[in-house]
Amino acid sequence: MAMPDELRDLLDGRWAALRRNSSELLGKLEPAHDLDREEYRAWVLEQLHALAEGGHPLTGFPAAYGGKDDVGGSVVAFEVLGYGDLSLMVKAGVQWGLFGGAVQALGTRAHHDEYLPAIMNLELPGCFAMTESGHGSDVQHLRTTATYDPASQEFVVHTPDVSARKDYIGNAARDGRMAVVFAQLVTAGESHGVHAVLVPIRDESGAPMPGVRIEDCGSKAGLNGVDNGRLTFDNVRVPRSALLDRYGSVSADGVYSSPIEGAGRRFFTMLGTLVRGRISVAGGAGSATKKALTIAIRYGLARRQFTRPDSDEEVVVLDYLAHQRRLLPALATSYALHFAQEELVSALHDVADDRGRRELESRAAGLKAVATWHATATIQTCREACGGAGYLSENLLAGLKADTDVFTTFEGDNTVLLQLVAKGLLTSYRDHVGDLDPWGMARFVADQFVGVVIERTAARAIIDRLVSGSSDALLDRGWQLRQFEDRERHVVEGLARRLRRATAENAFDVFNAAQDHVLHAARAHVDRVVLEAFVAAVDRCGDAATAGLLDQVCDLYALSTIEADRAWFLEHGRLTPARAKAVTQAVNDLCGGLRPHARRLVDAFGIPEGWLAAPIIT
Amino acid sequence: MAMPDELRDLLDGRWAALRRNSSELLGKLEPAHDLDREEYRAWVLEQLHALAEGGHPLTGFPAAYGGKDDVGGSVVAFEVLGYGDLSLMVKAGVQWGLFGGAVQALGTRAHHDEYLPAIMNLELPGCFAMTESGHGSDVQHLRTTATYDPASQEFVVHTPDVSARKDYIGNAARDGRMAVVFAQLVTAGESHGVHAVLVPIRDESGAPMPGVRIEDCGSKAGLNGVDNGRLTFDNVRVPRSALLDRYGSVSADGVYSSPIEGAGRRFFTMLGTLVRGRISVAGGAGSATKKALTIAIRYGLARRQFTRPDSDEEVVVLDYLAHQRRLLPALATSYALHFAQEELVSALHDVADDRGRRELESRAAGLKAVATWHATATIQTCREACGGAGYLSENLLAGLKADTDVFTTFEGDNTVLLQLVAKGLLTSYRDHVGDLDPWGMARFVADQFVGVVIERTAARAIIDRLVSGSSDALLDRGWQLRQFEDRERHVVEGLARRLRRATAENAFDVFNAAQDHVLHAARAHVDRVVLEAFVAAVDRCGDAATAGLLDQVCDLYALSTIEADRAWFLEHGRLTPARAKAVTQAVNDLCGGLRPHARRLVDAFGIPEGWLAAPIIT
Repeated sequence: MAMPDELRDLLDGRWAALRRNSSELLGKLEPAHDLDREEYRAWVLEQLHALAEGGHPLTGFPAAYGGKDDVGGSVVAFEVLGYGDLSLMVKAGVQWGLFGGAVQALGTRAHHDEYLPAIMNLELPGCFAMTESGHGSDVQHLRTTATYDPASQEFVVHTPDVSARKDYIGNAARDGRMAVVFAQLVTAGESHGVHAVLVPIRDESGAPMPGVRIEDCGSKAGLNGVDNGRLTFDNVRVPRSALLDRYGSVSADGVYSSPIEGAGRRFFTMLGTLVRGRISVAGGAGSATKKALTIAIRYGLARRQFTRPDSDEEVVVLDYLAHQRRLLPALATSYALHFAQEELVSALHDVADDRGRRELESRAAGLKAVATWHATATIQTCREACGGAGYLSENLLAGLKADTDVFTTFEGDNTVLLQLVAKGLLTSYRDHVGDLDPWGMARFVADQFVGVVIERTAARAIIDRLVSGSSDALLDRGWQLRQFEDRERHVVEGLARRLRRATAENAFDVFNAAQDHVLHAARAHVDRVVLEAFVAAVDRCGDAATAGLLDQVCDLYALSTIEADRAWFLEHGRLTPARAKAVTQAVNDLCGGLRPHARRLVDAFGIPEGWLAAPIIT
Repeated sequence: MAMPDELRDLLDGRWAALRRNSSELLGKLEPAHDLDREEYRAWVLEQLHALAEGGHPLTGFPAAYGGKDDVGGSVVAFEVLGYGDLSLMVKAGVQWGLFGGAVQALGTRAHHDEYLPAIMNLELPGCFAMTESGHGSDVQHLRTTATYDPASQEFVVHTPDVSARKDYIGNAARDGRMAVVFAQLVTAGESHGVHAVLVPIRDESGAPMPGVRIEDCGSKAGLNGVDNGRLTFDNVRVPRSALLDRYGSVSADGVYSSPIEGAGRRFFTMLGTLVRGRISVAGGAGSATKKALTIAIRYGLARRQFTRPDSDEEVVVLDYLAHQRRLLPALATSYALHFAQEELVSALHDVADDRGRRELESRAAGLKAVATWHATATIQTCREACGGAGYLSENLLAGLKADTDVFTTFEGDNTVLLQLVAKGLLTSYRDHVGDLDPWGMARFVADQFVGVVIERTAARAIIDRLVSGSSDALLDRGWQLRQFEDRERHVVEGLARRLRRATAENAFDVFNAAQDHVLHAARAHVDRVVLEAFVAAVDRCGDAATAGLLDQVCDLYALSTIEADRAWFLEHGRLTPARAKAVTQAVNDLCGGLRPHARRLVDAFGIPEGWLAAPIIT
């Protein structure tokens, strides 16, 4: 590993100290090898205890309970776990982020007092039971019920049929003792929408509680150290106090009240408080991607194949243009996403008002989708770039691929998430992003769309200056920024025109016919936000040589992104054919220019060397 | 499963009877569940014996030894195994295709007499030991040696250092008793290039032979039922008769002779006889992809999410345009590749002359690359299209992804293979496709390139007619064919112009700067060959309604392929912006048009229902 340097400092960013401490804690743990599923689960639980003892969970919890009240830091600490064992990272996320986070965000003082200490120190392992077999994306229509019985002052939690069974629930199959169960809250025959209720699922001995059926999801593609399971409730009774009642409560005699009107708005307000989960997944995906790139690039610098015609030496495979093309634009994108992630974490940490919160939800959805698809594609490429060696478990890429594969669909399916982003753009974040069916967007736009405003999300002044002073050179940052902004504006406006045709009768068809356009609009928006974050980071860099290197990385990100969508730029007269070909050539040239810096660029991620113990790079 | 129909008959094609018999044999086996690695390996060996007893290996071996002399059929039988357990498929391929195939193709009568019966009935499990830790793609420069010792009339097989260790060798870690070892043949201090020698690696009791070190590659991303291992030889002596001497032999007193001059040409002639392996991988990848599509499409037809605005019903997810977009163009491509695979298998079966053989090698390389990348991308998409359920092992997609992942790099790394294809195009197949370093291509072209000739590979008469009578309508097959041909011609000619600049001094740099162009040329060629095969298949279809349906599938393949590369068509003035947008719209429309036929299209693959036992579709 390179000595700490300017580049690493810039990447470490606002939470540098925490990042290094977390990294040190992770460095004390050691990877597991060749365990079967039950052994692996046991190992993960053991490591989770080590994290608890090492203080990992404190960051995100309230100071009143011994925590540090550092919301942003809690995401950064999770991100760092992504350099280690990903089952451990996910299990930590389930216990402290989802389960603990729900108790913290949706519960009130009494819940905090009673449960947070035991959640933090892992005495009370728990689950976040939202998804059902029949409802994953459309969680507003979950079908588990929590019906209030005023006679006993209890809620009766019930699974009406198998499609309402809680499914894929982490911590459920083996370790969880309690679950935050999301259910339709019913009082006096009236439903108030989805609320969260605390339900004990196992007793002290580990046996399921009466009325709770627990199944094991069994083997998965990856993350086999996490015990995902299924929960079915047969009229399980919990006291009235089990309702996490920050956004809706039920009096002893069964009267429902809430500070928020409307079941939909209320539920999406609750969901909004859980946005940290999506941001964490984006960060974890980023860490796994960096680790894969580190392995593939270090191997690409060591591996040789085919003798040069003009010498006896074999060619280092990263000297091949095709190999550079596979790895270096992906590396540039990882840099870009890293800085966008840090902006997002900062926004989460600092968010002040409702509109900011809605914008945050939208950006979290977008970055989660883009970062996890980037992870899936890049880790795949890294595996292939290491050939047969990349297929062996000992070289870590197989596990990285398998473990991260689910990121594109958990904590929100990426396709659905991008639709939420588009909705935010079209409605100027006037309401919670989840609060409409997809086609509701179409009708909303028909009524209310007033035009696209590109609001810069980072380093506004510097971006203004770059854009206004820009030439038409491909390597002019202002020109690149203009292309990203212009594409977003044009795609979103075109989408709005299409969706405006919607009426109450044809909303589904109008929406559905434009669905690829919807996804493209969201993607164009996220790309722009990511580029702006990169530009802001380069601007923060105090060291001229480092900034110069980062400028090239940023060029590669910007131009490879334009290249990937250059059909759009050609179709819309933004690039001439000659200029489009010049973009491709510029990407090739940038790959060659960055090739000598590849090792430094991956070393700056600062991945603990103990977690990079792949024989092909050691 | 649908009743056998016209569509299935067309897909079953020339080897229909064999395909159904193989399918029946496979249907008698049952999937394994949740075995650990050693149990899984044992299970696979057991099933391999069941295949041997069921007659599976007979197809490809000579009638003189009880076989059926049906080379094409042997590939089809392998393909069918791709619907079942992929470790079993690969292990069968190693034993009978690679090991048995090498003895058959590179050995002579005495080897056949001595070994083929025991190879066929699995008494003699064996390995194909070509790849070394240090040389995978560049197998011409393997460093294991087989040095002839005239005193004892033996070859001394030796591994000079760890990078010359045989690596990733299937059947080596547990079961193999003999290996075909590829090594530099040395007589009297002179090297004659790579030859194959039979080396016993284990005795009857299963213990390694003296001087042979066997290591286990351990866990892999997938295919954990195959025992891949590493072989190191410490001056291991084998008799003179152990040399597979069809293309090169050594007399008792150590004089080397060969019917082929030049170590390079000789080795690539040997490799050429092993082309069946690549064709088999393309076929196996095709089967796995069809299975993934069958699962994802059947799930997409059963799964509902989000209530329609105009009714109480939830929407079937395959009704969403975005979902159709993910699955249906991939399905169309699977159809196209199926027919291209059948053409290729027929060409293998019927190949008559040397030029035909070289063209076959090139097409095998190209189709292997395209089919395996299609598998990787499509199976990934299918997993994502099934959400969390797709991540569970029980739903089979996780295994399909993990098991097929290595296909893109084994039996030839895809990037290297596409370079061989390009070389074939530029040299008009004047020599064996592997017989130059990549940059040798550049110098060759500089000297000899005479222009591109598009030779139609299937159904020449019908394609001539379609092209000559074509309009400019997007759905006119002739127009589509012209686009594919025109792109290939233009890209290859442009490439030739660039490579012509090569001199002895700058060949590497000229080649390397054009490497992305090289890959694009190969891709354009393969796309054209695939489309032609599809057109020929539609033309063979006797039933008008079925042909009409296939015509739409073919449109979707052609237009989604053009759409994916529409930047090129725009850059080169082949599509106007308006027309490029019309291509996108046409793909959307075709997706909608094929949606009602999706189930029939996957049922026609005829996958044994017992191997589709995924809870999400049952």
